[in-house]
Amino acid sequence: MNTERIERMLGRMEERGLEQLLITAPSSIFYLTGHYEEPLERFWALYLRKDGAHRLVSNRLFSLPEVNGVDILWYEDGESAVGKLCPCLMKDRVLGVDGVTASRYLLELMERNAAAGYVDASKIMEQVRACKDACEQRKMEEVSLINDMAMGRFRELIREGVTELEIAGQMEGIYRELGADGFSFAPLVGFGGNAACGHHGPGRTKLKKGDCVLFDVGCRKYGLCSDMTRTFFFGEPDEESRRVYETVLRAQLAAEAAIRPGVPLREVDGIARNIIGEAGYGSYFTHRLGHFIGYDVHEAGDASPASEIIAEPGMIFSVEPGIYLPDRVGVRIEDLVLVTEDGVRVLNHYPKELTVIEG
Amino acid sequence: MNTERIERMLGRMEERGLEQLLITAPSSIFYLTGHYEEPLERFWALYLRKDGAHRLVSNRLFSLPEVNGVDILWYEDGESAVGKLCPCLMKDRVLGVDGVTASRYLLELMERNAAAGYVDASKIMEQVRACKDACEQRKMEEVSLINDMAMGRFRELIREGVTELEIAGQMEGIYRELGADGFSFAPLVGFGGNAACGHHGPGRTKLKKGDCVLFDVGCRKYGLCSDMTRTFFFGEPDEESRRVYETVLRAQLAAEAAIRPGVPLREVDGIARNIIGEAGYGSYFTHRLGHFIGYDVHEAGDASPASEIIAEPGMIFSVEPGIYLPDRVGVRIEDLVLVTEDGVRVLNHYPKELTVIEG
Repeated sequence: MNTERIERMLGRMEERGLEQLLITAPSSIFYLTGHYEEPLERFWALYLRKDGAHRLVSNRLFSLPEVNGVDILWYEDGESAVGKLCPCLMKDRVLGVDGVTASRYLLELMERNAAAGYVDASKIMEQVRACKDACEQRKMEEVSLINDMAMGRFRELIREGVTELEIAGQMEGIYRELGADGFSFAPLVGFGGNAACGHHGPGRTKLKKGDCVLFDVGCRKYGLCSDMTRTFFFGEPDEESRRVYETVLRAQLAAEAAIRPGVPLREVDGIARNIIGEAGYGSYFTHRLGHFIGYDVHEAGDASPASEIIAEPGMIFSVEPGIYLPDRVGVRIEDLVLVTEDGVRVLNHYPKELTVIEG
Repeated sequence: MNTERIERMLGRMEERGLEQLLITAPSSIFYLTGHYEEPLERFWALYLRKDGAHRLVSNRLFSLPEVNGVDILWYEDGESAVGKLCPCLMKDRVLGVDGVTASRYLLELMERNAAAGYVDASKIMEQVRACKDACEQRKMEEVSLINDMAMGRFRELIREGVTELEIAGQMEGIYRELGADGFSFAPLVGFGGNAACGHHGPGRTKLKKGDCVLFDVGCRKYGLCSDMTRTFFFGEPDEESRRVYETVLRAQLAAEAAIRPGVPLREVDGIARNIIGEAGYGSYFTHRLGHFIGYDVHEAGDASPASEIIAEPGMIFSVEPGIYLPDRVGVRIEDLVLVTEDGVRVLNHYPKELTVIEG
């Protein structure tokens, strides 16, 4: 168990008057215990209690070593894991529940009268995870540098007639050669109009002159995720594609430049959104400006018009405005940024100016 | 919307006295609507109602086309998706909930008094999906044949000094060459003692003489999953490894041979478990015999000591006994099987007899 992080959790629980909390997100359990498990449909949970009587609930199949500072409740396939946990809960107290916990377990807890009430306590975990400590910051910097290097290698794969899948298929090997453990998410590779489709997976489309080439890619190391997007042009883009690109780039740079402690993230989103809106593309910027990231590629918290988050030192999130003209062109430019004591550090360094690759 | 499948859902709901049901598993929504979406942390749901007033709830970001037979409720980032859905629910009726639905949404529904009560209705979806129709059976057969062909190619990659990662890194490309869309799950590649660790991911271990080589692999096509395990020996195995292999093979064959409509799946599990137990390895067969499979690689339902499922025509599941001697050797042999009208059809054909690969 990571004592310092557990203490921060218990502190946040106390602020909210919660004495017990159930966590089931594998990345959160990893964050707090150092042990990662992919439980698929099985139950895997960490139960935190004000008085320190924490419990890990683990299937016998999981290859879990001893974990310092917590007793393990083992169950086997066919047994009720929730049933094993119930006697350890405080029945007369409200139980905080991780928002991602599967309803089947929450409904079983309710049926067994395991607690006096149930509240979505996601915010506690989210707030603790949102601000990265010095060690996490250093690792996030390293995993982003690998992503920069990888982008250079991916760019070399761009040639006439190549398919999105042919490029995507080479990416994981490149990441591993560069020292990463693998993808942080399945890479998005979109040519031409495909780049304008929200989350387009790579397909059999062949690259042709005039197409944009969008790479939204990331790798994982130390359990932490990188995430970056660059959009290239294969052959000379038409005038509107150029205008789209330059607008996205201006929006991206302006948003990054505005970040410092104390700034509401909805304002950062607004800066990019206004620039894109004034250029006449407001309705083609269809998503939030950015999302938090760390042990998950999308962590709770975002920079969006509805965000209530104020920038604090240690926060790491993406800044990724985009303009998507259906069936024509899609441009997105994305970096990860770290809020520092007095400003911001951009964790990606791969160039962003409009790049035309001659076929 | 797939009218026939929706009708089966409504029929099962009626049997259980349920008039409304909320489904959030992306594979279940794909199964019923034909549209697949990977929503990550966003809300994506299909609401089914006895009277046909179904609704799909979709984020504006999802690239959802018109869907026949259902109205779409659109929401944007920053809006409450649950809030949009609530007015469409029957407040005075119990709401069935998909067991995998994130608790944050269930708690929000409860807070908004969206229904008269909430029950885990996973079984309805599970039962409808468990029996594959003729079209699904044909596709599952094809995707399993691709897996057979791929296994032959993977075997060719076995050579002295190769690492697990080097083999795993070539697998997706091979699947794609053979016509699959990609992995159905991250492949398990384990050498020697690594093969004995539950779900060992591929690492930098190098292959050496006398090691077993375990490949637990599958691909995806038409949205459907294959899954197969074979264990080879690189160089002559020791005597106990041979005995382990022959025991697993006997257990696997005996279990498959016992499958026909009407047989409880816990008995099928018991047949394999007894054979392994009588050989003295009972405590080293640490998991259930098999799991259902289809649009998800692990679907609800299993062949285990606790299973209450009786084999019915159309069911497809894995038969995968194993023996794992810690730090020494792990052997698992796995096929997918289809329950037919009068027996069973094994969907994998890659040979299972003990195979020694000379280095």
